[in-house]
Amino acid sequence: MPAVPRHRAPIVDAAVRLFRRQGYAGTGLNDIVDMSGAPKGSLYHYFPAGKSSIAVAAVEEAGRRVAETLIKLARETGSTGDLLRAHARLLAGWMRKSGFRDGCPITTVLLELAPRERAVAEAGRKAYAARLEVIRDKLIADGINAGQSARLASLCVSALQGALIQARVERSGAPLEIAAEELARMLERAVTP
Amino acid sequence: MPAVPRHRAPIVDAAVRLFRRQGYAGTGLNDIVDMSGAPKGSLYHYFPAGKSSIAVAAVEEAGRRVAETLIKLARETGSTGDLLRAHARLLAGWMRKSGFRDGCPITTVLLELAPRERAVAEAGRKAYAARLEVIRDKLIADGINAGQSARLASLCVSALQGALIQARVERSGAPLEIAAEELARMLERAVTP
Repeated sequence: MPAVPRHRAPIVDAAVRLFRRQGYAGTGLNDIVDMSGAPKGSLYHYFPAGKSSIAVAAVEEAGRRVAETLIKLARETGSTGDLLRAHARLLAGWMRKSGFRDGCPITTVLLELAPRERAVAEAGRKAYAARLEVIRDKLIADGINAGQSARLASLCVSALQGALIQARVERSGAPLEIAAEELARMLERAVTP
Repeated sequence: MPAVPRHRAPIVDAAVRLFRRQGYAGTGLNDIVDMSGAPKGSLYHYFPAGKSSIAVAAVEEAGRRVAETLIKLARETGSTGDLLRAHARLLAGWMRKSGFRDGCPITTVLLELAPRERAVAEAGRKAYAARLEVIRDKLIADGINAGQSARLASLCVSALQGALIQARVERSGAPLEIAAEELARMLERAVTP
């Protein structure tokens, strides 16, 4: 009977939080163990390949959470413009609450590791693909053709991603709210016949 | 007579390159000294406050270079749309040339340090402000009012910033070229009476 993986989730959760705040290289294995409350041995048990395999798991987990949030918002909103507005409001609220210390849970790790760790880059690529898909499908539901929807989804994901960084540096939610509102208006003009 | 600061520029240049590729925490002072070719003592001479003061200088220098590039492109192009297209082409070309290992020279450092190093965050804020100003002025020259130009400039800077990250993860210049082209078309529609 396999061991119940009860310590895996707290380890990944701690890694997501720490990498988001202080990056991959700035986070030690001991920091992850301390925050997770798991015994140190369990870290080596679940991640025998070491720290970079924790990064892969953290990017996958964070990507899953972002996609879930987007899917929920897509169901609750009537157009892509409103989806973007709602997402920006949520992100700006989270950032304010953390004193602008939290940002996108995967960007820092991706920037640090994507060039040299293929598995991390691949997890990042999948996380992006999941976000792109939700927004593309919402644009198609708005009446935009599939090819153009894929291009506009790429722009929307890029814009909110970049706005998160700008928001962190400026310690203000404004870049997020502006990016979403301006994109929403542009999309609404594109849809109106 | 003050010493000629002949080693300062190579140190800052090496820091810009290394932070861009492997982040701040992942770069040791020895790596910077080795790449710069400067004697180790000069690092402590110019940066007595240590590694975080090198990060401030690197963000300032990289911000200056990005602003110079944008100013040059703004002079050479006839509209904001064409400025964005030209900038995206340039960035995508640089990324391809580096095998997608290079990215924005300041993003990784900002994400790693902005929450805890006030001087780094301030240097980042100034670097963003310089980019925003060039694009805002170009939008004003296109005939858009000042308030709306500032908002659209914020969206454009966010979008290209985020597209750089997406390009790095996907190992493709497409996210940059798509973001610029779609923004350019939207701006062109906004300007056309």
